[in-house]
Amino acid sequence: MRWNLLSTCVRSSFGKLALAAAVSATLVSVAPAQNKVELSSGQLSELQKVAATRGLNVDDLIAAAKTYTPSGKIDEYITFASGGHSGQIFVIGVPSMRQLRTIAVFTPEPWQGFGYGSGEDVLKEGDLDENHKIRWGDTHHPALSETDGSYDGQFLFIGDKANARIAVIDLRDFETKQILKNPITMSDHGCGFVTPNSEYVIEGGQYANPLGNTYAPIEEYKKAYRGMCTLWKFDRAKGRIDKSKSFAIELPPYHQDLFDAGKLASDGLIFGNSFNSEAAYGAIERGMPPLEAAASQKDMDYLHVIDWKKAEKLVEAGKAETINGFKVLKIDTLIKEGVLYFIPEPKSPHGVDVTPDGEYVVVSGKLDPHVTIYSTAKIRDAIATGKIKSHDEYGIPVLDFDACKEVQVEVGLGPLHTQFDDKGYAYTSLFLDSAICRWTLGGKLAKHGQKPWTVMGKAPMQYNVGHLVTAEGDTASPDGKYMIGMNKWSVDRFFQTGPLLPQNFQLVDISEGGDKMPVLYDLPIGNGEPHYAQMIKADKLKPWDIYPEIGFNPHTMAVDPKAPMPGDEKVVREADGKVHVYMTIVRSHFTPENIEVNEGDTVVFHLTSMEQAVDATHGFCIAGYNINLSLEPGEYAVTEFKATKAGTFPFYCTEFCSALHLEMMGYFQVKPTQGAAAK
Amino acid sequence: MRWNLLSTCVRSSFGKLALAAAVSATLVSVAPAQNKVELSSGQLSELQKVAATRGLNVDDLIAAAKTYTPSGKIDEYITFASGGHSGQIFVIGVPSMRQLRTIAVFTPEPWQGFGYGSGEDVLKEGDLDENHKIRWGDTHHPALSETDGSYDGQFLFIGDKANARIAVIDLRDFETKQILKNPITMSDHGCGFVTPNSEYVIEGGQYANPLGNTYAPIEEYKKAYRGMCTLWKFDRAKGRIDKSKSFAIELPPYHQDLFDAGKLASDGLIFGNSFNSEAAYGAIERGMPPLEAAASQKDMDYLHVIDWKKAEKLVEAGKAETINGFKVLKIDTLIKEGVLYFIPEPKSPHGVDVTPDGEYVVVSGKLDPHVTIYSTAKIRDAIATGKIKSHDEYGIPVLDFDACKEVQVEVGLGPLHTQFDDKGYAYTSLFLDSAICRWTLGGKLAKHGQKPWTVMGKAPMQYNVGHLVTAEGDTASPDGKYMIGMNKWSVDRFFQTGPLLPQNFQLVDISEGGDKMPVLYDLPIGNGEPHYAQMIKADKLKPWDIYPEIGFNPHTMAVDPKAPMPGDEKVVREADGKVHVYMTIVRSHFTPENIEVNEGDTVVFHLTSMEQAVDATHGFCIAGYNINLSLEPGEYAVTEFKATKAGTFPFYCTEFCSALHLEMMGYFQVKPTQGAAAK
Repeated sequence: MRWNLLSTCVRSSFGKLALAAAVSATLVSVAPAQNKVELSSGQLSELQKVAATRGLNVDDLIAAAKTYTPSGKIDEYITFASGGHSGQIFVIGVPSMRQLRTIAVFTPEPWQGFGYGSGEDVLKEGDLDENHKIRWGDTHHPALSETDGSYDGQFLFIGDKANARIAVIDLRDFETKQILKNPITMSDHGCGFVTPNSEYVIEGGQYANPLGNTYAPIEEYKKAYRGMCTLWKFDRAKGRIDKSKSFAIELPPYHQDLFDAGKLASDGLIFGNSFNSEAAYGAIERGMPPLEAAASQKDMDYLHVIDWKKAEKLVEAGKAETINGFKVLKIDTLIKEGVLYFIPEPKSPHGVDVTPDGEYVVVSGKLDPHVTIYSTAKIRDAIATGKIKSHDEYGIPVLDFDACKEVQVEVGLGPLHTQFDDKGYAYTSLFLDSAICRWTLGGKLAKHGQKPWTVMGKAPMQYNVGHLVTAEGDTASPDGKYMIGMNKWSVDRFFQTGPLLPQNFQLVDISEGGDKMPVLYDLPIGNGEPHYAQMIKADKLKPWDIYPEIGFNPHTMAVDPKAPMPGDEKVVREADGKVHVYMTIVRSHFTPENIEVNEGDTVVFHLTSMEQAVDATHGFCIAGYNINLSLEPGEYAVTEFKATKAGTFPFYCTEFCSALHLEMMGYFQVKPTQGAAAK
Repeated sequence: MRWNLLSTCVRSSFGKLALAAAVSATLVSVAPAQNKVELSSGQLSELQKVAATRGLNVDDLIAAAKTYTPSGKIDEYITFASGGHSGQIFVIGVPSMRQLRTIAVFTPEPWQGFGYGSGEDVLKEGDLDENHKIRWGDTHHPALSETDGSYDGQFLFIGDKANARIAVIDLRDFETKQILKNPITMSDHGCGFVTPNSEYVIEGGQYANPLGNTYAPIEEYKKAYRGMCTLWKFDRAKGRIDKSKSFAIELPPYHQDLFDAGKLASDGLIFGNSFNSEAAYGAIERGMPPLEAAASQKDMDYLHVIDWKKAEKLVEAGKAETINGFKVLKIDTLIKEGVLYFIPEPKSPHGVDVTPDGEYVVVSGKLDPHVTIYSTAKIRDAIATGKIKSHDEYGIPVLDFDACKEVQVEVGLGPLHTQFDDKGYAYTSLFLDSAICRWTLGGKLAKHGQKPWTVMGKAPMQYNVGHLVTAEGDTASPDGKYMIGMNKWSVDRFFQTGPLLPQNFQLVDISEGGDKMPVLYDLPIGNGEPHYAQMIKADKLKPWDIYPEIGFNPHTMAVDPKAPMPGDEKVVREADGKVHVYMTIVRSHFTPENIEVNEGDTVVFHLTSMEQAVDATHGFCIAGYNINLSLEPGEYAVTEFKATKAGTFPFYCTEFCSALHLEMMGYFQVKPTQGAAAK
């Protein structure tokens, strides 16, 4: 039994490591044993010499000390950033700014086995139909699940702007569990944002479409095209969105942009903004102004205010119509029942952000140098007292701007998004100024000791900052401390890797007040273009280190009755006519190692990893068959395919597992049938 | 012309940035202005407090200073690491250890537009056939092109172990230009390694197969299965491998593992190692030992020595046979012509590494605690004088071990790979010890002032180090300074991101001698499992910042005559019956903006980016059609598809380009035909 000795030897060696791990893993931010780290004169001299040799100044040394995270020390915050048109999510530790993991969401990714023989059910759910597969996405706004307006660390939602889809990720195993196609439109943007207890995940549309994804000539834009805001009902116990309890709100064909749910003082409301209230569709091919100009003519666009609790009741009362099998509250119903109001907002806004106390909504007009702050109490009052100034051309009541406005603050050129900290400062990204402006909130949140609604200073960004994120910045109680500027262009910041450049995430220290906001770190993002991120305290997340039981199916989140255990290994043609392979996997062999089928057979592999040590992951690939699975400790996976190609195909473990990893292989033989042999 | 004003405004703002860039980008490693950076007592106190608060010690502060790279400072070295079963390559700056970019190679990646409407010709070239697409790979060993045994920074090659394929990347634009399927086998491992002037790229096989990718029962393993080593001829002027001038060398069905080309003293030879000289195929399903044990029975396996210059002449002389359209030198010819010799090597080796002077070959037997150092002069002499001890069962002459061996050094448990520095130290990764051993070379390279062939010390790794890489470590003149341990397991080093953990790249400072090898940095790799890497001096790379001319086609590396220029924009049904869309792209509009076709039309988009500013990249996606392209400044791209789904599909720019980026969109209308409308 020499082979067992080999396995055991390796296994116990890892067992020791895992034990050491539990002891040595500590947070960097633990209370210091002393107030100062003492340096001898020799050590200080060495440090000074290293700095001089590398061209670092004193600020650099302090920034290095604030971010450098030695081996085995754990980051204090975890940032989930969308990957933009990579279709993925990036998990980044703060303050070390190291990318800890990519989560495959809309785009197949073989290291995780997602879409290469596994995860197909999830991906298929998001297809247009069986002939129109979509295998990427433009991820924009990750949203952590919330309880009482605070991140609870359980789930993560994200939208796909390119195809109007939404995904659900379970933060126990960091895997994508569900993808849903919006049945009524083709693009979204304000997705996802959650209501304070994750009752709903909001998906706001972007480019208007004939609802139901049908065709209508572009000349019929105003008549036939519509915007929308979809409320996806989240079933926390199941960890899935319940499509049957979800619904959409029909909106005029303006380009809705971002949405945010009210909280505390404004709980029950949803705020969304829009550009192109001109309802232009561009006609540069006819010598007319392109959309970028045609959609920027009016001085004001419309802030959308939606009463989602009222909308929910209307749907329950059967007041929704059905489009493409999906419940939609139509504009006339919304007007009649008082669900939807507009408020003017400075032209072409990009950000709409509710303050932590829910008292204010901050809107940034990207072509206007101000942020406009609306009072949610004043909005409620304007609705209650009927302060309606006009109606848009679809009959939607437009509230009086001055009645709803609290104040405007001039922050600089190209304001986009606003985030908050624990002291009552707000931070607005300035795209054209390439900076982030810190200004003071008024009201109950003002703990900064400064005059409210006043600019404090700006942190320069390299370059063209889009979104920004602060620690716990979207919750009812932000942490402050850290902010990341998510810069769209990096230009000269990093070594040039060809004409396609990375984005630049700049970490900013916001722990001090006033105008002090030093940039601590530049992180290149060279595998996608993140749009938005959320930053959560690391200790709020409770991920699994291995699956809870052997034979665990991540798609059902339970032990699978089909999972083979030792002794069950076999290759058998079952009643369904398919060849079923029942295989167990353990360092460092597959059982069975040789499998033969006939050309044309449908083959189903059932694989159970018997591993229980942390990090003892195996991969399983079959040469030539476009299959690669990742089997984490205890995981059961199933993959089905048709053996249409005759030949000899090695399979092997693709994730380095032991000193005998290269020997962990076998052969998948596809015997030619007569017809195939003749060719 | 208001829209032009808007564009111009944004453009000139970026122009200024680009100018600033040229001035501010400097190397961190420039000669210091002074010997020491001065700190005031207040600054020192702040630094000490930050360190204490974050739990850093003095060594951490020094490591931070050695790696921290402030905004705008450029890394000194660039590391190209394989992404393992992610199928990609990662570009990492050293010493900052930041991932600058992912290069899409075998796996489609939408941010780069690779495989989502563009790059299909490259990907298709690597398919088994048109019905058997392969859309991922298991990248193992990146190889930079060399001139006179030094990296020249022009091209990068990499193999796909899972499907026996090789890819060529052009380092002007960091894009994959070619993928070739090996016509005779299904898996490789030792791929790619280049000969000293990149005449050939070596692809060594791994798991034996019936040559030509055919079927043979597993019981006929010894008779019908074969290993191989393929020499791909590289045409540097064309930047492509020339398959017609390439050939393979037939080998016994041992599992060949890694290969390395001789250089200088050993130029003209190729060294490869092998495990499983037992020719076992595993039979655990029959109650027999699994392959991991069956392949580990003998104490010695075979080091392969191939005379590639002699082999090349034999192919030119017509001595190769043809298998599946590919030239193969068969074993009997190799024996008769003296092209192939074996030398015993301690069991189950993993690394075979030629020293910078070409005088020695270092082999690590992963189940033996020694590295075995062979003298290439002694090998040549043993061949010349016929010091043949025996023949293997395929008749291949086995040279006398003692006649070829220079020395053995006991380095520790699980030795895998060896790299070199500028002082004559060798570094061997120890998988089971989780450490890297530094030992001294003898011969002309010994500048270390120590006793040759002696262990100096070990740097602990967390955990299970596989490959390692030193700066310029595979060249005739390594730089020393930096080493990266490529650790397979990270266990407790980072915040747990579910059961699938990142790998851990540990940067080691090897600038000092003796046993001093401090670990400077832990970099998690959370989107693949890198196997090997090469590290090149950054200033050897000469990447483009934008494409050289407007209308440049990256696939032909020339201006494309089909590239539309301003005034050429149109939608036209051409003689081929296809609807051709000629579109130009500039901040922030597409021309045309509205396109209508009929359901069932084949549509060809020709897109030219008119941009000339660095980083002014546009994306182009069509909702629902699984298309996303990346158009870097000046690039021309073409994408063809069938409009099989009727409806209204927004297209838009997916790479944030200006304040009016969101307005950069249009509509692709697919008018239903009668048949489709009826459904």
